[in-house]
Formats: sequence, structure tokens, C-alpha cells
Amino acid sequence: MDIEKYIKSRAAAVNAALPRFVAALRDSDPRLAGAMTYSLAAGGKRLRPVLMGASYEIFGGKASEILPAACALEMVHTYSLVHDDLPAMDDDDLRRGRPTSHKVYGEALAILAGDALLTDAFTVLLSSRYPARVKPAGLLAAARVLARRAGARGMVSGQAADLAAEGFLRGKVTPARRKAGLQLLSYIHLHKTADLITAAVEMGAALAGAPEKDFRALSAFGRDIGLCFQVADDILDVVGDKKKLGKSGSDARNKKLTYASLLGVPEARARAEALMRKALPALARARGAAGPKAALAGIAEFVYRREN
Amino acid sequence: MDIEKYIKSRAAAVNAALPRFVAALRDSDPRLAGAMTYSLAAGGKRLRPVLMGASYEIFGGKASEILPAACALEMVHTYSLVHDDLPAMDDDDLRRGRPTSHKVYGEALAILAGDALLTDAFTVLLSSRYPARVKPAGLLAAARVLARRAGARGMVSGQAADLAAEGFLRGKVTPARRKAGLQLLSYIHLHKTADLITAAVEMGAALAGAPEKDFRALSAFGRDIGLCFQVADDILDVVGDKKKLGKSGSDARNKKLTYASLLGVPEARARAEALMRKALPALARARGAAGPKAALAGIAEFVYRREN
Repeated sequence: MDIEKYIKSRAAAVNAALPRFVAALRDSDPRLAGAMTYSLAAGGKRLRPVLMGASYEIFGGKASEILPAACALEMVHTYSLVHDDLPAMDDDDLRRGRPTSHKVYGEALAILAGDALLTDAFTVLLSSRYPARVKPAGLLAAARVLARRAGARGMVSGQAADLAAEGFLRGKVTPARRKAGLQLLSYIHLHKTADLITAAVEMGAALAGAPEKDFRALSAFGRDIGLCFQVADDILDVVGDKKKLGKSGSDARNKKLTYASLLGVPEARARAEALMRKALPALARARGAAGPKAALAGIAEFVYRREN
Repeated sequence: MDIEKYIKSRAAAVNAALPRFVAALRDSDPRLAGAMTYSLAAGGKRLRPVLMGASYEIFGGKASEILPAACALEMVHTYSLVHDDLPAMDDDDLRRGRPTSHKVYGEALAILAGDALLTDAFTVLLSSRYPARVKPAGLLAAARVLARRAGARGMVSGQAADLAAEGFLRGKVTPARRKAGLQLLSYIHLHKTADLITAAVEMGAALAGAPEKDFRALSAFGRDIGLCFQVADDILDVVGDKKKLGKSGSDARNKKLTYASLLGVPEARARAEALMRKALPALARARGAAGPKAALAGIAEFVYRREN
């Protein structure tokens, strides 16, 4: 399986579906709708929707049946980037190779566009039509996963801890501080990044009505590739090609705590690989179709090796 | 019926229930949980949850059965205030008699606390237990109402238009500009304020599984008292007792377009009364228990007469 081709073709289906939901914004304030569309259309790998589709397919459905849910998750991811880039947060000027939302629309509208993307994600998720395979209980479960993983006990706590860790590297890194830093990093990565990637595979399983045991196996897989994704991201912020990344690498400027800055790049790489290797047995525990499982394994490897 | 006593006693039940949901934040980032609690505990009239409870009771239930949904709506309202007060938005220092979130926690954490209140509102709404009277279809319908009324086609569009209207009164108000201003104001009030108050009565009806016709009657009632609420708010921003209001009256400072500033206080008062009078026949069209309907009528009058 050519995994990059697989991801690209699945991402294309998401990119084709997103404007359908954006079209529903026609009676919104036009500046607001413009700011939402700008950030949604900025591209990206669409990794979370692709993961959700593959996870759903393990249990017999077709990814195209749950495109609204996949787009909803991408909307939540997009909101988190818009708010994360704000001057009061990471203060980034560039995202996916284009000026960030607040650079184009101003700070106030960027805040509102993020708020609306988050809220409308629930409208898209809950108000869309699904085939009979998706039961109301599965839809409710998927919405619960999204809210839980994106909220105060999930992604937002990761962002808050990330803020608090800013400037960590301005002080001298003694062995005791290194240990505290590693603990803090685990918390940040688990919530800031892994929670939403975990939500992707969990929502796919929930929508498919997967048995509890398989849901848990996929959840563990999602957590590990989510953690791997963020370690790889930290490494890329140091050694990556800024042009390929399409962002400016604000971690070093903000003296941010990352695995790369705390342990050095080679040790961070080893950690990313260990996480990827740990994810695979969890995936193997989930029963279901072999093809989508192979796709998920391929994505795990891609997450580890990616260059942007 | 002593409506102020009614509102106070119903609000007390909401205030007693909110900490239960806040307690679920114990594994969140402690600063984030602190900022969320701070704004939730700041009080306020809890008008939206009280409206939801009365609307639900029209169809035979007890308001106490849907307290999680009522608290969820209050969380969404609270998030909107936290973001609205931000320096990039209205830049208010005082809210409900206390320093605003960003004054206490800084801008970044205030943004995140708002994000988390909004997201966790869906967790509270969707993950709570309800009696058998509340069907999964009713819960899904209530969640759809919340997302739709709070999102890009609802409250956030109102906020975006409100921003755009800032400074409107710096220019000379010719008759043509006055007309344009009134049109813009209708849009702002409908979305910024009335949408979430409409959501309150709609969610109560949805959770109760109300017939479509009654749902629509209550929806019209909610819209009119929501509009009345905002006109009264505009008047209070000019003539109100700042101490009773617990906020600093930023409209005049921001040269904001309001009914009071555009038409003068007496004409704004006449408009508020007309809206209140218009709400009552809509309410009368909804079939159901007389007691809760009388409470809703009393709240309509209260909204018009309130001093804070």
C-alpha cells in the first residue's frame, strides 16, 4: 500500500466535502464566514479525518458515509490552530504557508472564527444525514468523544499547560528540572495533540457501533500515534524545512519546552520510533477488516517519518 | 406569582448544580479549571437556564430533570461573555461586579477558558443522565439547537456584526444612516442576544419532545423576549446604575450602535415594550400547562422592567 497516495486520496474527499458545510454558512456574517472558509481551505494533511474514515471502515462501513463527522473533527482541529496562533498565545504569523487568520482578519474576528468553527463542528456532526448503519446512539457517543477530547479534560488543558511551559528553557536545566520537564511534556503532548488524534479513531469506532473492546484497542493506538505525531512535530520545528512545514517554527523563539529542546534531536527521534512501535500491537488487538487496519498501520509509520 | 422570587429560586437550583459539573474538571489543568470556575461562579440572573426549565415544564416534566442541559446553556453564555470582554473585543474590565477573566488570568488563559466552557457545555449536555421522559432523539435535537443558535449562523454572527458596528456613531447620523443603523441593529440583536435566549426555550421544548407547532410558538416567544432583553440592556448601559449592573458600560466609550444611542432612550423604551407585548400572543399559542406558561409571561415582563 502506497500510504501517501492513500492519505492524499482520502484527504481529497474531505477537501471536496468541506465546502458543502461551508455553504451552509451563507446566512452568516460575511466577514465571519470568510474567515472560517479561509482557515478551513488552507489545506493540511487532513490526517484526523483520514484516520476516522479508516477506523470506521474496520467495522464494515465506507469512509464516505461519515464525511460530515470527519469534516466536523477537521473544523475542531482548525479552530484550535486559529486560536493557538493568536498574539496572546503562540503569536504565529504563518500557518500552512499562508498568513495566519489574525494577520488577515484581525484578532477579534480570528477569535470569533475559531469560536464558530468549534460550535459549527457540532452542527455539522449532529445535523447531517448518515446511513442506517450509524445509529443515534453511535452519533451521540461520537459527539461525546469529540466534546470530551477537545474540552477542558482534553485538548484545551494541553494548550493551557503548554502556555505555562513557555519560557521553561530560559532557566538552567538541572537533572531535577529535566525530569519535571519530561513529566510536563507528557501531559502537554497527551492532551494538546494526542487527544484529538485519539478522538479521530474513537469517533470512527463509535459511529460504527464498534464493540467496547475494539474501541479501547483503537483508543490506545490513537493515543500512541498522537504522541508520536507531536514528538515528530517538535523535531521538525528544529530540523524541518520551514518551506515544507509552512510555519515559522515559533518553539525556539518562545523558549518552549519540547522533546527536541530538552533531550536533543537523536533521543527525541528514538522516542518517536518507540511510540510508533508501541502503537502497532494495540491496533492488532482490534478485530475487523484487514485492509483498513493496514492503512492505520501505514499512517502510524507515516506519522513517524513525515517531513511536514 | 412573584416572578423575581420564582427566578431567584430557580436560579439557586442552577447555582447548586453547576459545581457538580465543575467537579468533573478535577483532572484538567488547574489554572484552566480555576479560570472556568471563576467565570461560572460570578453569578448573574441565570435567565437562560430558568427559561429552559419553565419551557420544559409546559410539557409535563420538572425543571430539575434537565438541570445538566440548563447548566450547559449557562456555560455557553458564560463563554460568550469571557470572549466578548477580551481586549481584542469589547475590552471590558468589569463583569458582574468582578474583574473580567483576562484581568485575573491573562488574555491567553481567558481565551482558553472560553473555549473550554463552550466545548464542555456539550460534554455536560450529552454525557449526563436524564429521566426516561427525555428520549435520545430529544437530546440530539436539543444539542442541534444549542450548536445552531450559538454558532456561525447564530450568536457568533451577531458578535461579528457588533464588532463591525463599533464606531458607527463617530460618523454623522443622517436619516439614511439611521435607517441602515436600525437594520444592522436588528441583525445584531437577533443573533448576538436573542438566539441564545431562543435556544433556552427551544431546548426545553426539544428535551420534552414537544410537538412541532408548540416548539415554533415558543421559539417565536423566545426571539421576541430576547430582542426585548437586548433593547433593555442598551437602555441600561446609558441610564442604569453601574453598581447594580456590575459592569462598566463600554457601549458609549466604544461609540457603539445601540437603540438608545440611535433613537434616544424614550423611543428605545417604547420599542422594548412593543417587543414584550408581541411575545405574549406567541406564548399563548403553545398548548400545555398553565403554571409554567404564566412563569414565562412573568419573565417576559421582568426582562422588560429589569434594572440590572
